[in-house]
Amino acid sequence: MPEFLELLPPEEALSRLLSELPVQITIESVKTEASLGRVTADPVVAVHPLPSFDRSTVDGYAVRATDTHGAGEALPAYLKVVGEVPMGAVPAMSLEQGQCALIHTGGMLPPGADAVVMIEYSQLIKSAEVEIMHSVAVGENVIMVGEDVKRMQEVIPSGTRIRSAEIGGAMALGITDIKVTRKPHLGILSTGDEIIPPDEEILPGQVRDINSYTLSALVEKTGGVPRRYGIISDRADKLYSIAQKALEECDIVVVTAGSSASVRDLTSQVIEKLGIPGVLVHGVNVRPGKPTILGVCEGKAVIGLPGNPVSALVIAWLFVVPIIETLLGIQHPQPSPSVQARLTTNLASQAGREDWVPVRLIREQDAYIAEPIFGKSNLIFTLVKAGGLIRIPSDANGLSAGEIVQVRLF
Amino acid sequence: MPEFLELLPPEEALSRLLSELPVQITIESVKTEASLGRVTADPVVAVHPLPSFDRSTVDGYAVRATDTHGAGEALPAYLKVVGEVPMGAVPAMSLEQGQCALIHTGGMLPPGADAVVMIEYSQLIKSAEVEIMHSVAVGENVIMVGEDVKRMQEVIPSGTRIRSAEIGGAMALGITDIKVTRKPHLGILSTGDEIIPPDEEILPGQVRDINSYTLSALVEKTGGVPRRYGIISDRADKLYSIAQKALEECDIVVVTAGSSASVRDLTSQVIEKLGIPGVLVHGVNVRPGKPTILGVCEGKAVIGLPGNPVSALVIAWLFVVPIIETLLGIQHPQPSPSVQARLTTNLASQAGREDWVPVRLIREQDAYIAEPIFGKSNLIFTLVKAGGLIRIPSDANGLSAGEIVQVRLF
Repeated sequence: MPEFLELLPPEEALSRLLSELPVQITIESVKTEASLGRVTADPVVAVHPLPSFDRSTVDGYAVRATDTHGAGEALPAYLKVVGEVPMGAVPAMSLEQGQCALIHTGGMLPPGADAVVMIEYSQLIKSAEVEIMHSVAVGENVIMVGEDVKRMQEVIPSGTRIRSAEIGGAMALGITDIKVTRKPHLGILSTGDEIIPPDEEILPGQVRDINSYTLSALVEKTGGVPRRYGIISDRADKLYSIAQKALEECDIVVVTAGSSASVRDLTSQVIEKLGIPGVLVHGVNVRPGKPTILGVCEGKAVIGLPGNPVSALVIAWLFVVPIIETLLGIQHPQPSPSVQARLTTNLASQAGREDWVPVRLIREQDAYIAEPIFGKSNLIFTLVKAGGLIRIPSDANGLSAGEIVQVRLF
Repeated sequence: MPEFLELLPPEEALSRLLSELPVQITIESVKTEASLGRVTADPVVAVHPLPSFDRSTVDGYAVRATDTHGAGEALPAYLKVVGEVPMGAVPAMSLEQGQCALIHTGGMLPPGADAVVMIEYSQLIKSAEVEIMHSVAVGENVIMVGEDVKRMQEVIPSGTRIRSAEIGGAMALGITDIKVTRKPHLGILSTGDEIIPPDEEILPGQVRDINSYTLSALVEKTGGVPRRYGIISDRADKLYSIAQKALEECDIVVVTAGSSASVRDLTSQVIEKLGIPGVLVHGVNVRPGKPTILGVCEGKAVIGLPGNPVSALVIAWLFVVPIIETLLGIQHPQPSPSVQARLTTNLASQAGREDWVPVRLIREQDAYIAEPIFGKSNLIFTLVKAGGLIRIPSDANGLSAGEIVQVRLF
């Protein structure tokens, strides 16, 4: 099997692919309110400071701090209340010595005021006079102009995946349209004479297409656009012509190869024919997923995934997701979501090979336990039962029962 | 401040709300290929076994296991090759004693065969005779009918959030339409005389509406449908009439209260007036987010969130997300995505109160360090800078520098 002469470790295989993959970012503008999950194409810069005026952080009295010096329960300061600061508007008053103004959380400090005394430390004694039983320092209970963000400060770097927080930050600055990177399109080709569409009745010997749909969902979740090119029979000319069409129309092409070695060879021949440099990696030292093919043709990534649905998904997590993220222009990848769990049983592994093992996650009081799902089948319901995957690094001989492991969620 | 007479711990506050909240699941049917993130409303049952025929897991020769007994490098067994199993169809041949058939991964075992010998252990010596250099047991390198899933087996429980794997599992069984729960609609009302829409220029004293949009994004991500009812001035009659409309049209209503105590009182009065039982929790022992109001009116959850954008989002994670998940009918919640990190500094906390502290996540070789983001402002860019939040439980006095903490991603 010439394809497995050189098995690269997964990280090295990915680097080899990425080093040959040109990245051209196309920018588009979307409504900020509809930008969740997109990636910023330009840094977001504050056009004005935040807050844009000195704001009170409490309900109380805006004061001149010096007027409260020495004030306490035993010896209150007496201040004249010259009015109430309206919400959302510039206060009409300005404070002279010995004066204060009623202010609410978020209200704008009137000229002359430099601190706020919390309402709890005050006692209104007449309609226009208040006892202050606490001294405050300059700036106390106030957020100053620019304390959150300064004018012209870069507040969201380019290449950031937009979460709720970034949407809020942009809105605070009045940025209601935002420049994001275009979603990469990923073409999916399923091969195999035994594969039929999911809406057809299966005859003996046939199996339904799973990979086109699991991969579509994964691409969608990662922020790409999946395009399905259907099920292609195991014939080189047919596969080549559809792959070529997909290569023209998409940014990435994924072929889920039939399961047998001959069909995998077909995939690799087609990738070689699609353009230079062609196949870069043929076989990865990972389980499941050894027969993975990584290539670049005419500046676009072309990936041959194993036909087994579990292998296909695991390999897509390891390779297709980072490729999509690269083409999305992500500069600051967020950590992979995971959860900590205690392993129930020993797990053996072949040193030198990286293993990804599906585990059931079982809640036990405040913690999780991870129970490996064994079975030679490696069929799709292994993953349905699994809460996540654990990685056995290539330099380990396995993991031990009782060990705390990080379970990668999917 | 009567609202804070009784501060409930967050978990108890949530239980109190959920115990008063009737859950009525509405079922709808969607295309399985478009069901990512939806929640199953019925158990998915296998209409046929998987695999539906005995399949080879390798490339090789389908054999009768007894014909290989004792075979090895030194003493091969010689078998007659009676044909090749076609992919996707019933094999035409059936094996007699001393016969075998070429088979590919995924191919259907011909009648008479009960195991497969890997191609690596064979040597074709004539066009129709093969040396077998390895013995196999019955069932070796074969997945038997029903080994993955048995007929009528429940394969996806009701109340499961659909991931790639579940889409694949359903497709494997020919389930191209799937029953899911209806997405709950959540009405969002922003109050505050100082709040203006994000597309308007701010004047001194004004701030833009952030919460309507951060909450919309969160609701969308959780699987609900956000509906924004705009910015409402701090007047009881106006707030009541719009809240009533939202209550009629939505399954959950969230009011992000203005920041001051008087406006929070307004929210709680309006919730009381919207229906019974009304306000259930007024004040939660959590920071940020103490002035949270939880209520149920006419069978629907009505939540008063603090106006501060950081508090609003944190409280929405703690309360609004589980309410949406409950109305989605989720029975098997997935663990909250998190990442393990080493805390850089001591964090003090008040015993008895649960704290959520935003942290910057910094990658350091293969691990993360978590650097708390301090600042009195609690403004939105605190969260923009944050990779996640860490929880200081109410029974702790804080966390220590160097401790390994779980950072909850958002």
